[in-house]
Parts: sequence; structure tokens; C-alpha cells
Amino acid sequence: MRAVIFHDVGKPITIEEIEIDEPLADEVLVKTAASGICGSDLHYFDGTSAMPYPAVFGHEGAGVVEAVGSGVSEFSPGDHVIACLSVYCGECVDCLTGRSNLCELKPERGPADPPRVSRDGVGLHQHARVGSHAEYMLLHKNGLVKIRDDMPLDRASLIGCGVTTGFGAALRTAKVEPGSTVAVFGTGGVGLSALNGSIVAGARIVIAVDVRDDKLANATNIGATHVVNGAETDPVEAIREITGGGADYTFEAIGKPPVARQAFDALRAGGTCTVIGVMPIGSEISIAGRDLLREKKLQGSSMGSNRLKVDIPRYVDMYLGGKLRLDDMITNRGTIDDAPAMFDAAIAADEARQIFLFDS
Amino acid sequence: MRAVIFHDVGKPITIEEIEIDEPLADEVLVKTAASGICGSDLHYFDGTSAMPYPAVFGHEGAGVVEAVGSGVSEFSPGDHVIACLSVYCGECVDCLTGRSNLCELKPERGPADPPRVSRDGVGLHQHARVGSHAEYMLLHKNGLVKIRDDMPLDRASLIGCGVTTGFGAALRTAKVEPGSTVAVFGTGGVGLSALNGSIVAGARIVIAVDVRDDKLANATNIGATHVVNGAETDPVEAIREITGGGADYTFEAIGKPPVARQAFDALRAGGTCTVIGVMPIGSEISIAGRDLLREKKLQGSSMGSNRLKVDIPRYVDMYLGGKLRLDDMITNRGTIDDAPAMFDAAIAADEARQIFLFDS
Repeated sequence: MRAVIFHDVGKPITIEEIEIDEPLADEVLVKTAASGICGSDLHYFDGTSAMPYPAVFGHEGAGVVEAVGSGVSEFSPGDHVIACLSVYCGECVDCLTGRSNLCELKPERGPADPPRVSRDGVGLHQHARVGSHAEYMLLHKNGLVKIRDDMPLDRASLIGCGVTTGFGAALRTAKVEPGSTVAVFGTGGVGLSALNGSIVAGARIVIAVDVRDDKLANATNIGATHVVNGAETDPVEAIREITGGGADYTFEAIGKPPVARQAFDALRAGGTCTVIGVMPIGSEISIAGRDLLREKKLQGSSMGSNRLKVDIPRYVDMYLGGKLRLDDMITNRGTIDDAPAMFDAAIAADEARQIFLFDS
Repeated sequence: MRAVIFHDVGKPITIEEIEIDEPLADEVLVKTAASGICGSDLHYFDGTSAMPYPAVFGHEGAGVVEAVGSGVSEFSPGDHVIACLSVYCGECVDCLTGRSNLCELKPERGPADPPRVSRDGVGLHQHARVGSHAEYMLLHKNGLVKIRDDMPLDRASLIGCGVTTGFGAALRTAKVEPGSTVAVFGTGGVGLSALNGSIVAGARIVIAVDVRDDKLANATNIGATHVVNGAETDPVEAIREITGGGADYTFEAIGKPPVARQAFDALRAGGTCTVIGVMPIGSEISIAGRDLLREKKLQGSSMGSNRLKVDIPRYVDMYLGGKLRLDDMITNRGTIDDAPAMFDAAIAADEARQIFLFDS
């Protein structure tokens, strides 16, 4: 099969012909239909995050089951599925208390295991145990979920990571309340999804903050009640003015510590700042100690606090029911042969969400 | 009446004869029975916190109603009451959504108002709108609550601040779950109360952290399952080992940013660190940005998230029912004439809780 291969920080990705194995007992082989370029993909290019390499890149995919391992009864060939990196064991304390997104089942699949994916006989890693920028994905049975056949697979792919992360951060991690006020910093795919989730939850004021007016227009499109260009206006002051003292909920959807600080500072007393963005390795977030006396909260969200087999089908229903807005989020489509140019556009933040399509 | 007067950072307190007015319409005059020395009193001596001065000192008192203003129907002379600095308006969004502790009703009562308390005709401030280290307290009707007559007033005084702050941080702010694991940093009155609350909530492991073995013995007395002397052992490592990876809940009950960092670092994935201690003005708390990916939370508690008229009578019932442990917490009693020596002992952290008693 053909796949996008990540080699190392600073090295160009390549598109290569590689081999993929048959599923082991607990595995499912999926023919990829679509794979989104996620903001966290980009963190590997500049070393903000690290992963073992060489690796089949990508972790936001949807497709159709091709074959299942002997221990898999939940899936059959032909099933439409979404892959998710929140693969879980199903047996630990976190899994058994509704927090399978925090399960510590090893997230990377590498050559130390029987090589599932290889090039010229040498094992490759699968990025985040998914490796979706490839014609096939070999997934642990708890790293994918069956969805309705009437769900378009291109839009479905986004639910596998970015949408679940942002939409879930609003609905599940922060539990945004009806009538509340919200500000979201960053209007990429994750930020737009957090905005979308806040609107679905009934927030009465939903403020989008970004430094580009073209991206803020996407936020208005999705239903933001206010936009703030942080390059022109102090967003903390603007949010305090719009909300009359600070927002009940803020979200950081970029991954920059100074922005997390702004998001925390923009809270009213008793408010909650949820950090969704992946912070650089070794970075620190600092807040004013005295602000804690006003019962402000700073919390992280991991993949939207998902229980993937429960929440992803719900989000699919919410898309088909008109609540989850995905159509406006995809601003570019291509094939993996377009990968270098599409990653360049992603790094320039010129697109909300781009997806690779595969022959079906 | 006689009262302890705070003059300024670095200046000695004095015990003086001063005047107290009759209650205005919305006020209640209370004859003080007992007043606790709270850890936050000490913050004014070194400038960690600031208050307007000269002021009648103290904010943790209980006593008996002497007279009520014309607009007060809730109290009558002879009622036993506890004062609380979480005075509230009853009309704002916070008050109407169960968060009256966050009400922004002006917390200090000073000479700009009609002088309620004065010395030689010059108005004095009342510390935190209470001023309990005095023979009488003149309180806003929403800054005190009626309690059962069978509650001893010396122990009652502690519920006005330290106990409500720590006990409430566990039960109301953090909402400690049965079967969970807890670590409390600091074993003064507030820390012991947070330990006590965690035990009442059903935590299965409750770890006390302090740097003094005599104070850790108090924690064991109250029911801590483990103690860690942070001067001898890295408390983060110790907590991780005892709990098998980190605590579900940690509490900072000292008011030092590096301790808040330890308390955050000692959490397991999905855990919540609640900062109760009052951080120095201008101080910053820093956490590793990457930890947020494990859904850790950092939050503040203001006075144990109390709704004082609801929670304080409940805590009184819980004391009389044997759940709230107050008797072991009071390690020294005196009169306001002993104030200089008792504050010195408090600064040396030689006592858990000390109280001033007044003639009844």
C-alpha cells in the first residue's frame, strides 16, 4: 500500500510503497477512505511533540473494514468505521470509570511488537497507533468504532480526532451550561469544534479569538456571537467587556502557554479554562496565585474526554441531525500525493481542515 | 469595648479600648464568646496579604446576639451565632446560583461608611467585615448565621472560617468521592479540616504532608491513613508510591506556590488539585503544560465554596454528630491580653488552632 512516512524533525515527509500485515487476533484491517490533517500532526515537524520514527503518519481516519482478527466479533468486513487514537484496554480503573481516554494502553505501535507495518521487511511505527495517511490502517479493536452507513466518510474522518477533541472538550470536559458565556482561543478545526459544542450546549455568548480575520469568518459561520482579533485588540479586555466581567468558560485550542494564560485571565470568578491545545514538551503554564481565591479552574482535556465507542456514534448522529457542523470545516481536499503542499498550507494556517481522500 | 488592633505590616498589634455603634437597619450586634487565630491573620503581619488599617483584627468568631437593626427579622437577642467573612448581597448572579461565597459585596467595612467602630471618634476598619478579636462584633445580617444553642461557642468560632474553608474545600469545592485517594499539604487548622472532610467523604487513602512530626501527629489523630514529612522525603514521590501513581485529589493548605506545584504534580491522570491556601500577592503558580493532556485540574477554593447560612449549621450538626473533629484542633486558649504571645506562637506554627475567649 502507499503511505505518508514521517522521518524526523526537519526532514521532508515521503510518500512510499510499504507492506501491511494481516490482522492479529485483536486487530482490524481498515481500507482508508479519508484522513484529516490534524493540528497535532504539525507539532511533529517542529519538534513541539515527539514520536518514534520512521512512522506511517496521520491519526484521523475513517474507512471500511476489510478484514478482522480471530478475536474480533464486533466488526465485519464492509462496516463503516472511524479510527481514534484513544485506544483503550477496557480493563483498568480509568476504563471502568468512564475515562477510557486516560487509559495508558501503549499509544505507539512500533517494531518492538510483531511489525504490523513495514518497509522492505523493516518494521515501521504507526503514528498514535493509527497511521491514517495510508491506504490501509491496522487497528486494535478498541481503537475504532462502527458508524452508520449513511455518514459520509470524508466528514466522518474528522470526528476521529479534531472534532471529538474540541466538541467533546465543550460538552464532556467543561460541560458548558445553557445560558453561559464562552470564549475560544484559536479557530482551527479543534477550536471551531469547541465553539460548535458550546453553541450546541446552549451558551448565550460565544466569542471566537484568533489573529486572522479569514479564520474568524469561519467562526462566525459556525455561529460565534462575537469575534475578537487578538492581533488588534487585547482579547482578555475584550472578553471581559463583552461578558461583563469575564467568561464562564474559556478554551485554549492552539497549544501556546501565553494563550492559556490569556484564556485563564479572561475567566470570571468560578469560571473554568480548558486547555485543549497540545503544549510544547517542557513548557510551563503560569497563572496568578491570587486568582485561585476567586475559584477559577485550569484543566486539561484529553481528546474531548471521549469514551470513543459511545461518543463518536453520538457525534455522527449529531452531524446527520444538523447539530455538529462539519461541512464548513473542510476547506481543502487532496490525495496523499499532494501531502507536501497540503502540509505547507497547514503550517501556514491557511486552511481550517484539509483531508486526504483515497480511492474507494 | 476592648479589641485587638492591627496597625500596619511590621508594627506590633495593640489591645485598646474602642467604641462600637448601635446596629443600623441591616446589622446585628454580637457579643463575642470566642475568636480563632486563623492562618490568614498571619499573612497581614508579613504583607503576604493586605488590608486597610487601623483595623479591628480577626474574622473567625462566634457569640450571642445582643441587638439587631430595624430591618433584621432573622435574629433576636440571645441567639447563638457564628460570624463568617463570606458576607453576601443575596441578589447577584453568584448569590442566586448557589455561589454566594463569590459575591463581590464589599468585604471590608471602613471609615468611608458611617463609622461603625471607632477610636476617639475616628473610624476604624473591621477586618474582613468581621473584626472578631474584640468584645463585640457589628455584622451585616448576611455575615452571620444562627446555630443550635447546644453547640459550644469556642469550637463554633472555628467553623466561621478555617473549618468551613478546609472541610468545605473537600466536600463542596473538590467533592471528594468515596473510595478515592487524597493528599493534603499543610496540617494547620485548614489542612486538618480538609483531611477531616476527605475522611467524612469516604476517601480510602488520606495522606497528610507537613515538615513537622508534631503536626503530623495531629493529622494521624484526626484519621490520616499516611503521613509524609516533606522535609525528609520528596512528598510527590511518596504520594505516587502510596497511591500507585498519584492521588485523585490533592489540597494545598499553606499558601506557597512551590507547594501548589508539588500538590499538582502528585495527582494521577484526571485528578484535581484544590488550592485553599492564600497565595502571596503577585505570586505565580507554574505547572507543566504537558500535564494538562492527562486531564489534571488546578482550582481554587474560596472559603470552602460555602453558602454560609446553609453549610455552617450543617457543619455544627456534623460536629455534634461526631463527624466533624474540632476538639483536637484547639491546642491553646487565652484572652486578647495574651494576643502578642499567641500570635508569636501562631507565626512559629507551634499550634494547630488557638482561640481567644471572652467573658460571657
